[in-house]
Amino acid sequence: MARPKPLSGFPEFLPAQRMVEQAVVDVLRETFELHGFANIETRAVEPMEALTSKGEITKEVYVVRRLHATPDETDDLGLHFDLTVPLARYVLENSGHLVFPFRRYQIQKVWRGERPQEGRYREFTQADIDIVGENTLAEHHDVEAPLVMLEALERLHTGLGLPPVRMHVNNRKLSEGFYRGLGITEPAAVLQRVDKFDKIGPQAVKELLTGELGLSGDVADKCVELATISTDDASFVDRVRELGVHSEMLDEGLDALARVLSAANRRLPGRMVADLKIARGLDYYTGTVYETELVGHEAMGSVSSGGRYDALATDGKRTYPGVGISLGLTRLLGPMLGRGELAASRPVPSCVLVAVDDDQTRGVAMDVASALRFRGIPCEVAAKADKYGKQIRQADRRGIPYVWFGGLQGEVKDIRSGDQVAADATVWQPPERDLRPSVLAFDA
Amino acid sequence: MARPKPLSGFPEFLPAQRMVEQAVVDVLRETFELHGFANIETRAVEPMEALTSKGEITKEVYVVRRLHATPDETDDLGLHFDLTVPLARYVLENSGHLVFPFRRYQIQKVWRGERPQEGRYREFTQADIDIVGENTLAEHHDVEAPLVMLEALERLHTGLGLPPVRMHVNNRKLSEGFYRGLGITEPAAVLQRVDKFDKIGPQAVKELLTGELGLSGDVADKCVELATISTDDASFVDRVRELGVHSEMLDEGLDALARVLSAANRRLPGRMVADLKIARGLDYYTGTVYETELVGHEAMGSVSSGGRYDALATDGKRTYPGVGISLGLTRLLGPMLGRGELAASRPVPSCVLVAVDDDQTRGVAMDVASALRFRGIPCEVAAKADKYGKQIRQADRRGIPYVWFGGLQGEVKDIRSGDQVAADATVWQPPERDLRPSVLAFDA
Repeated sequence: MARPKPLSGFPEFLPAQRMVEQAVVDVLRETFELHGFANIETRAVEPMEALTSKGEITKEVYVVRRLHATPDETDDLGLHFDLTVPLARYVLENSGHLVFPFRRYQIQKVWRGERPQEGRYREFTQADIDIVGENTLAEHHDVEAPLVMLEALERLHTGLGLPPVRMHVNNRKLSEGFYRGLGITEPAAVLQRVDKFDKIGPQAVKELLTGELGLSGDVADKCVELATISTDDASFVDRVRELGVHSEMLDEGLDALARVLSAANRRLPGRMVADLKIARGLDYYTGTVYETELVGHEAMGSVSSGGRYDALATDGKRTYPGVGISLGLTRLLGPMLGRGELAASRPVPSCVLVAVDDDQTRGVAMDVASALRFRGIPCEVAAKADKYGKQIRQADRRGIPYVWFGGLQGEVKDIRSGDQVAADATVWQPPERDLRPSVLAFDA
Repeated sequence: MARPKPLSGFPEFLPAQRMVEQAVVDVLRETFELHGFANIETRAVEPMEALTSKGEITKEVYVVRRLHATPDETDDLGLHFDLTVPLARYVLENSGHLVFPFRRYQIQKVWRGERPQEGRYREFTQADIDIVGENTLAEHHDVEAPLVMLEALERLHTGLGLPPVRMHVNNRKLSEGFYRGLGITEPAAVLQRVDKFDKIGPQAVKELLTGELGLSGDVADKCVELATISTDDASFVDRVRELGVHSEMLDEGLDALARVLSAANRRLPGRMVADLKIARGLDYYTGTVYETELVGHEAMGSVSSGGRYDALATDGKRTYPGVGISLGLTRLLGPMLGRGELAASRPVPSCVLVAVDDDQTRGVAMDVASALRFRGIPCEVAAKADKYGKQIRQADRRGIPYVWFGGLQGEVKDIRSGDQVAADATVWQPPERDLRPSVLAFDA
């Protein structure tokens, strides 16, 4: 077998890179659980009809079929392309066993048959939180969901050295209420065009609105002006008022967005801005919508997006509204790991390599290793009873900071400093910073 | 959308069941890392040619294809059916970036298009450890790999209440050397038949050996006698010697197996037996082979199997021998979770529900929750400012043991005992046993 080549769009990490990813997942899990979110995993496949009901995504689905499927096998299955479709199905399927509001987080791979490019993958990991109600879901959860994700991202920044984030927030009711106040009857069509603001600029958006939708120049100008409003406090309310547009839905949207922003500013100042051009393409959002960029890496686009949907799922009798936000884990980490801006301090968990005198005394080395592990110190026994110098070089090649010589009453060498001291394997403890691999962040 | 039905063969867990699975994975990860194994994840897909090179597995592969694949897309991909084929490919692809012996663990889903039945799934999670050498791999790793898995399983038994295990170990060299000592020239054919010992019994095995392979009755008897030998110490060596068969390979196998057994008995007495009928169907094992049953659940079959392969992978220039053992996580947990023999103490991470007086003071409740989380106490704020009695009932329905009333200087009620005491949210600490959900084990 010749050396295999990587598959484009299916990133894989080396062990040290995977350690960084694990550390990030640990922080997410810890944060989400502190906020009372329970984890679930759903199967990788869903019926094709569930995956293709939203027209635009049809193209990107991977179909799954048994190689030797018999003609009577009518299961048409595809790999899930997000964690929202599976959540909606899981909630319907298990509603009798869940307590609402159902707070769940889910960290799993998803698959999309897109053309691979920088930051865009065919297989990638998403981390989602959602709060799902039964028939009703209070609006304060629209405030809660982004705060939980912001807190997780802040811990990744302060704890692991990832860049800080800025979350851009809007509310669909604000935009739609504004458009309706202007007499526009198809606000969704306007939203879709405003969604292109960052890509094509205000003038081109105005031309789409007047050309494609037949809005008057004045009305289109107001829509563009709304989209330019971005503030880091509640002053956006006054800016919108100055445009002289009124509707009840607009008031609702302004109130709701002001509440999200003031709650965020109270807890995590400077991390959230009101940004009235945020629209989010998918049409099922009905209230707050979020996008999140890494400060200094804005060109990457949003790494964490979500919003409120009034009907995540419905079984005819009951409707399940939800609010959620999704973090693109591979999208967040892939480029930084690739450029070496994030790395693990060593590629193995082992803190200690226990040297072996000769193969007859391997059992002694195993006893030392057991004593160290018993107190939570990861270690491995040297694979070969080479000369000590060679065993030390082997530890160095593996990135292991300490080598143990002799039995339980032995000596331990820090191979970085060369210091070697007598030590008892039943009590010796390495410094906390050496115990486990840690995440190192380097400037871009 | 009507209530969806589960897909046969694709098990999913409720949140409380998933908590048990997470706790098990945490124990595995902790144990494997203490032994210096680094984690990797590989992509879900492999080229079909890599998946179908072993004839017998061809039928079980799921083919993956983009719904709108263009005619020029020649990627023929399938979902991996184990973690060994991906490991072999990963080692070849990344050999220049790995340090050997490469110690890795991998906990991922795998897919097999088999007919679903009790304990047999189409999607399930495996946890594998392997040690991979470059050109050579010392035999002491054959002793090490099963000991690491046994230690993990022992921690699951003593820490989480899973049943104890018994690992059955043989060595291919022992069997093959014995057969060759009897003058048999195709030992693999004998191994394949002896592999059916547990299913069809000794008499039927003898008939296969004489009928299909044309062995004499005496030789077939010796093969069957060898297969009946099972001891929990090194006394199997004498039992084999009594059969009067000799070969150099047999001696090697006896020595190697005796070493594994005495190392296991020294560290985890009673958990390993030498069992000379263990053959393992797949033909790439060349040394020690392992199977593991749960004591009291022997009918489930093996939950953890593996062995030594002298050529996990080769690129023409270099060969990568390996030794590994795989734990069928879903197979281990699925039936026990289904029968309720394993359960989480509550279905949510939250230890405290912070009550809300009215929607104007929700911010106060959020401050209390922040103070609790700051010290690692998972909590959630009540979704609705109902009367206190209703909020307590809501906590009860969610399985949350404590309800907090008032602000930072408030009161906390243990809703199980009804005890309510004054408490300061910046210092109050629940008992350790209530902080996180725990795993409860019940007798079968």
